[in-house]
Amino acid sequence: MDNYYALVMAGGSGTRFWPLSRKKLPKQFLRLDSRTDSLIKLTHKRLRRMFEPTNIFYVANPDYAPLIINEIPEISESNIILEPMPKNTAPAIGLSAAVISKHDENAVLAVLPSDHYIKNEELFVQVLKVAYHVALDGNIITIGITPDRPETGFGYIKKGALISNIEGIDIHGVEAFIEKPNRQKAIEYLSTGRYLWNAGIFIFTAKKILQEMDRLMPNTLEVILKVRDILTKEPEKAREMFSEIQSISIDYGIMEKVSGIRVIPADIKWSDVGSWGAVRDILSKDSYGNVNIGENILIDCQDCIVRSENKTVAIIGMNSIAVISTDDAILVTPLEKCQDVKKVVDELEKVGKKELI
Amino acid sequence: MDNYYALVMAGGSGTRFWPLSRKKLPKQFLRLDSRTDSLIKLTHKRLRRMFEPTNIFYVANPDYAPLIINEIPEISESNIILEPMPKNTAPAIGLSAAVISKHDENAVLAVLPSDHYIKNEELFVQVLKVAYHVALDGNIITIGITPDRPETGFGYIKKGALISNIEGIDIHGVEAFIEKPNRQKAIEYLSTGRYLWNAGIFIFTAKKILQEMDRLMPNTLEVILKVRDILTKEPEKAREMFSEIQSISIDYGIMEKVSGIRVIPADIKWSDVGSWGAVRDILSKDSYGNVNIGENILIDCQDCIVRSENKTVAIIGMNSIAVISTDDAILVTPLEKCQDVKKVVDELEKVGKKELI
Repeated sequence: MDNYYALVMAGGSGTRFWPLSRKKLPKQFLRLDSRTDSLIKLTHKRLRRMFEPTNIFYVANPDYAPLIINEIPEISESNIILEPMPKNTAPAIGLSAAVISKHDENAVLAVLPSDHYIKNEELFVQVLKVAYHVALDGNIITIGITPDRPETGFGYIKKGALISNIEGIDIHGVEAFIEKPNRQKAIEYLSTGRYLWNAGIFIFTAKKILQEMDRLMPNTLEVILKVRDILTKEPEKAREMFSEIQSISIDYGIMEKVSGIRVIPADIKWSDVGSWGAVRDILSKDSYGNVNIGENILIDCQDCIVRSENKTVAIIGMNSIAVISTDDAILVTPLEKCQDVKKVVDELEKVGKKELI
Repeated sequence: MDNYYALVMAGGSGTRFWPLSRKKLPKQFLRLDSRTDSLIKLTHKRLRRMFEPTNIFYVANPDYAPLIINEIPEISESNIILEPMPKNTAPAIGLSAAVISKHDENAVLAVLPSDHYIKNEELFVQVLKVAYHVALDGNIITIGITPDRPETGFGYIKKGALISNIEGIDIHGVEAFIEKPNRQKAIEYLSTGRYLWNAGIFIFTAKKILQEMDRLMPNTLEVILKVRDILTKEPEKAREMFSEIQSISIDYGIMEKVSGIRVIPADIKWSDVGSWGAVRDILSKDSYGNVNIGENILIDCQDCIVRSENKTVAIIGMNSIAVISTDDAILVTPLEKCQDVKKVVDELEKVGKKELI
């Protein structure tokens, strides 16, 4: 598998982990538990179970390159593909496939997010290996996560007939990629057992994805190939050219329009780590369901997550809340409302507290 | 009224306002709203409506003397009576009466807490003036606060028959001083209209209180008079002697045993400022009932109090909670549980975080 490459999508930005995440330090670079590694480093370590550092590529905006090298010193600068500007996943993946295929025309790519959590790493690696073999035949493969709740925050994949089984791993056809459902649909999806979560993990040859891009978004590909050739030498020009192309996700741009995609259903204990509530779910808890990161005091509390830097947080008689304290800001919110942290960031913007964003 | 003196009890210590209050900085020295004065300074300003600084005395343990002078620079050191050690209110008041009567044998004293809040200052001053005249006749007068809720946290005064009316102010006899009631009794007290809150405010001549001490606790008075004479010259010996006397409140030691006490019922909008909830009640609120001290962001919150120093606190979707952030600690608690802050202090003691207490 010398021609197997991991392509880690590290360009994401967001505010869901404010006050810990900031514009200059997005989620993938956070240590959600201050005692462990950042999400991107955890991702890298997971991939190192089967990839050499030379075969792991990162794609991100240029501002993040120093952060990536800081987190993962063993990665070479040439393995960081600089996205001239954010244009969603299809252009980023297209550009990366173009870069890597120039380096190895037989490259097989496993495209993966940098900021997710996977508990069952052994199964994950096993599935990636099987996917490699299926991809060699010119297939696009995705990993579908077995759902354990009627989640409305993810896209779904409706699995089709069983196509084959390799080393105990089932490979199915894909009937459809489905957008985030409402609650009722999500419950229905869960009950049928035919729907899987779309975790944004895809395996294909560079050749195959470039072929599909040529077919489905030829203008974008044309720009991408030109940008590829001047990317490091003329970054300003690359940026200008990249600015012209359409911003679109790989799901909309490619996956939903390609037939014959395969899905491997896998119960790898995955989380998109999408909120403080998801962080609480992942981390180890005391016997009352509390996650305590830092030297905090919890009295008569249940199912809370409390994280502090330098200060002691004391919370009394609270259930299912998050208290997150950093050097300059503190968030207090019920877990069920922690998505509303966006509103805080909007408000900070409005009152001109840019330094906190 | 040149012989009228305010005696402010400034010796209290406590943990109810942790993390703001500390052993070295008790409640009376706190600015509960960082934009205004400390409670003791507010008390001083209130008294200055009718007393000259020379006629305002403070009694406190020696550690607090620099804090008092810092808050109230106009006060002379000789107006701070140093309690050799905490022995509750009866010995502190006895010693103070002994000190002041040596200086002015016809002194009339108004004894007042340093850490309470009074909104209707005009009525308060008016009542104090009337009480002065009643005290001149050798009476002990207390001010009884008209209750507006069935509070179980205060002692009560059962008022007796109307004795007189001076300048529109009623003066009643006292039927009984009553300890903190249970909820049912408190409701009963409220409904009869005959019970008042005991706010710890007493007016009497120094002569009268020393007379009553001589009658009811002669051994204590004997020690007090000796201590008075060596207080500043031999503080160590004073401390040693003071350590021998009984620790007892003025209520238990004197008031409950003296007949003929008068009470002036007064709706002076008083608060003992006994908890973060009480602080919220006092301070000005936004249209959702929130008190915001500092540059904090409250989204979808009601009836909360948020106070921060230096940091921005963001709270989302919470009702009736307190979030108090200082330089080294943060408290998050429902207002109805804010009395449990004691448990936090106990826990800090247990885990050896003495610097936070």
